[in-house]
Amino acid sequence: VALLTLAVAAADAQQAQGGRQGGRGGRQGGGAFAPPPINWPSPPLGDGPFLIESGDERNLKVVVVTKGLSHPWALAFLPDGTMLVTERAGRLRVIRNGVLNKTPVSGVPRVNGGGLSGLKDLALHPRFTQTRWVYMSYDKPADAGGGMGVSRGQWNGTSLRGVKEIFATGDGGAMRLAFGRDGMLYAAVSGGGGDGPQDPNSYSGKILRLRDDGTVPPDNPFVGRAGYLPQIYSMGHRTPLAMAVNPATGDLWAGEQGPNGGDELNIIRPGRNYGWPVISHGRNYMGPKVSESPWRDGMEQPEVVWVPSIALSGMAFYTGDRFPRWKGNSLFVGGLREGEVPRTGQIQRVVFNAKGEEIRREPMLRELHQRIRDVRQGPDGYLYLLTEEEDGALLRIEPGAPAAPSPAR
Amino acid sequence: VALLTLAVAAADAQQAQGGRQGGRGGRQGGGAFAPPPINWPSPPLGDGPFLIESGDERNLKVVVVTKGLSHPWALAFLPDGTMLVTERAGRLRVIRNGVLNKTPVSGVPRVNGGGLSGLKDLALHPRFTQTRWVYMSYDKPADAGGGMGVSRGQWNGTSLRGVKEIFATGDGGAMRLAFGRDGMLYAAVSGGGGDGPQDPNSYSGKILRLRDDGTVPPDNPFVGRAGYLPQIYSMGHRTPLAMAVNPATGDLWAGEQGPNGGDELNIIRPGRNYGWPVISHGRNYMGPKVSESPWRDGMEQPEVVWVPSIALSGMAFYTGDRFPRWKGNSLFVGGLREGEVPRTGQIQRVVFNAKGEEIRREPMLRELHQRIRDVRQGPDGYLYLLTEEEDGALLRIEPGAPAAPSPAR
Repeated sequence: VALLTLAVAAADAQQAQGGRQGGRGGRQGGGAFAPPPINWPSPPLGDGPFLIESGDERNLKVVVVTKGLSHPWALAFLPDGTMLVTERAGRLRVIRNGVLNKTPVSGVPRVNGGGLSGLKDLALHPRFTQTRWVYMSYDKPADAGGGMGVSRGQWNGTSLRGVKEIFATGDGGAMRLAFGRDGMLYAAVSGGGGDGPQDPNSYSGKILRLRDDGTVPPDNPFVGRAGYLPQIYSMGHRTPLAMAVNPATGDLWAGEQGPNGGDELNIIRPGRNYGWPVISHGRNYMGPKVSESPWRDGMEQPEVVWVPSIALSGMAFYTGDRFPRWKGNSLFVGGLREGEVPRTGQIQRVVFNAKGEEIRREPMLRELHQRIRDVRQGPDGYLYLLTEEEDGALLRIEPGAPAAPSPAR
Repeated sequence: VALLTLAVAAADAQQAQGGRQGGRGGRQGGGAFAPPPINWPSPPLGDGPFLIESGDERNLKVVVVTKGLSHPWALAFLPDGTMLVTERAGRLRVIRNGVLNKTPVSGVPRVNGGGLSGLKDLALHPRFTQTRWVYMSYDKPADAGGGMGVSRGQWNGTSLRGVKEIFATGDGGAMRLAFGRDGMLYAAVSGGGGDGPQDPNSYSGKILRLRDDGTVPPDNPFVGRAGYLPQIYSMGHRTPLAMAVNPATGDLWAGEQGPNGGDELNIIRPGRNYGWPVISHGRNYMGPKVSESPWRDGMEQPEVVWVPSIALSGMAFYTGDRFPRWKGNSLFVGGLREGEVPRTGQIQRVVFNAKGEEIRREPMLRELHQRIRDVRQGPDGYLYLLTEEEDGALLRIEPGAPAAPSPAR
C-alpha cells in the first residue's frame, strides 16, 4: 500500500508539473538525441512542515520559514537574527522573526537581471559588528560594462548606505563571495564555454583574491607576473557556484557544475589551475567527452566529483550542535536537479572521515522535488535552504522526532 | 498533501526495514568514520502492479511476475517462452506462463554458496535451438579447486542433461557470461582487492574469450605470449557484474562496480587493460582515493562512470517495440543501492545520441526501494528485472497508461 501511495503521489506531482510547463514529454518526442532542457519548474511546495527520514540523523523536520521569494540566490545571517536574501532580479529582501518584509532593501546596485544573471551572493565583512559592511556580487548591465561587479554598503538596520562598487571584471559571470581565514575576500567568476578560464589575462573562470576594499593584496600568487591579472588566485573554473571555508582546516573549498557530468568540489590553493575546459570528468551536453583524459599534469583533480551531475549550487560545512551526528564530518551541497522524472532537486551530504577524505554521500530531501539554490548553517545550528523557483522558499531543517533508542547489541 | 504522503510512505518503509535489520542507525552512532555496511534488506515489495511516472516513456506499469526467488542472479529466456533463473545458493528455477515451478532443475553443478558467492550467470548457446546448450558460471567450492567454473548442459525441456565443466579458473570470482557476435563465449572473472587483475598469469579480474567448448580460440590476443594466460581477452577488471553486446555496433560492453565511487561501463577490446586497481575514479571504502590520477597512458577510460556508485548489476540494451522512445538509444543498468535513506535500488537508463555517446541518465524505479540484480529484455519486448532479496522477485516493465497527447505548440 505504501508503494502505491508513493507512485500516485509522484503522478500527482508530475501532472501538476506537466500542466505548468506545457507538455515537455511531447516536445521531446521528436528529438530523442537532443539534450534535455535545463530549466523546469518544480511541483508546488506545500506548507509543511515535512517529516523526512534520513541517514545518521534519522528524523528531520523541514519547516517552510517563508515563501514569496523570487529566484532567491543567497542567504546571510546578521548578528541580530535578521536574514538577508538576494533575489536574482536584483532585490535584497529582509526576513525578521520568520516574516518576509514586503519592501526590498534600498541601495542595491543595478544588475543585469536577464536569463540566469542578476544579483547573486552576499557576504558579511569578518568584523561586521564594527564595519557593518555587506558585500554583494552581481552581473552588471552591458551599458555599465558587463561582467561581474562586487559592491559593499553599510547596513543601518533597514537599508544599505553608501553602496560602492569596489571591483568589476568586465567579463565572466558573477558567482560566490567568501571571506577567507586570512581576512581576504574571495570572489568567484564563472567561465562558461569559452577559453577564458585558461587565459591569465581574463577574469573569466577564475577565483579572485581581494582586500576588503577591492584592491589587490600584494602577496597574491601572480602579482608582478607579466600577462597575469594580479587579482587571480586560481584559474580553470567553469561555474564556481559554491564556496565555503572548511572550518576544520581553514582551506577554501569551491564547487562548480560540469556540463553533462563532472560537477566537482575543489580545495582552492594559490596559483593552481583546475583544468576547465582542458580537462573534465564530464561530457558536453550533446555527448562527446569534454576531454579524452580527465587528468593532466599541472592541473588539479577534484576532491569530490559527481557523474552524473546534480547541478550543484551553494554549500555549507556543518559545525552546529543541533545534529550531533553531522557535526564536524559533513558538507551539505545543494543540487538543482537529479535525473529526469520525477524531477528532483536535493541536497547531498558529503561525509568525511577523520582525515577529511570522502567516505560516502547521502542524497536528502528529494521527496520535496525542489531545486535547491543555497545551503547555509544558521547561527542557531539549523540548516537553511533556498529553493530556486519563481515562488521560492526559505526552508529550515530541524531535528524531527527523537531518534529510536539503539538496540542492545 | 502529495508531499506529506510521500514522507509518510517513506517512513513506513523505513520502519519496516529498521525492524528487520535491528537498528542500523544505532550501530552507526559509534562509528561515524567507518564505511556503511554493504548489505541491507529492502522493504517488502507489494503485490503490484505499480504505476510509475517516467521520462521519455512517461507511464510505466511494473508487474510482479513472481516472488519466491531466493537471491536470484540471472535470467534467460528459452525460445518456447520458458524462463530460467539462477538462485545464488545453487539452484536453477523454471518459470512457465508466469508460474514459478516449485522444483529446481536437476543437474546443476555444485557451487560454493557462501557470502555473495554461488551460482551466477546463464547464457544460451547462439544456436540453442540446435544445440540446446545452457551455460552457467559459478563459484566453485574450495574442495573442488575454488575460483570460477563454467559448465554447460543440454536442456531437455525440464532438466539439464550431460552437464560438464568446460572451463575453470582456480582463482577469481564468477561473474557474467555472454556470447559475442563472433560466436565466442566471453566469461568475466572478478578481481576484488588484490593485484590479480594486473597479473597476466592469473584469471582474476579478467574477461576471458573461449570457444563454445571451453577451449582457447587461436586468435585470442595473448595466445603464444610468454607469461600470459591464453584465455585472457582483457584485463584490469574489478567486478564485471554486467556484460552485454551492443546491438548497434556489435561491441561487447561490460560494467563493473567501483568501491566508493567509480562504477563504470567499458567497451571491451582485445588485449586492453581497464586499469583496476592501478587507476579508478573511486575511493576506497575508508576514504583515500584508489589512485591520485584516474588516468594512465596505456589503460582504458570508461565509457560511462558513476561517482558516487550505484553498485551496478546486470544490464540490457533495449531493442524492442514496446517502448518506441527507448528503442535503439537506451541501455538499462541495474543498481543495488543509491544513497543511504530511503535505501533505494534502481535501474538507470543511459541514453545515447546517434553516435553512441552518452547524453544523459534517467534513474528509474527508485519508488520501489528494491535492489536490482539483473536486467534483461524479454522476447516480448518488455523489460524484466530480478530483485536481489531473500524473497526475490521477477518484475516486468510494461507500458502504463497511454501517454498524454502532446499539446499543440
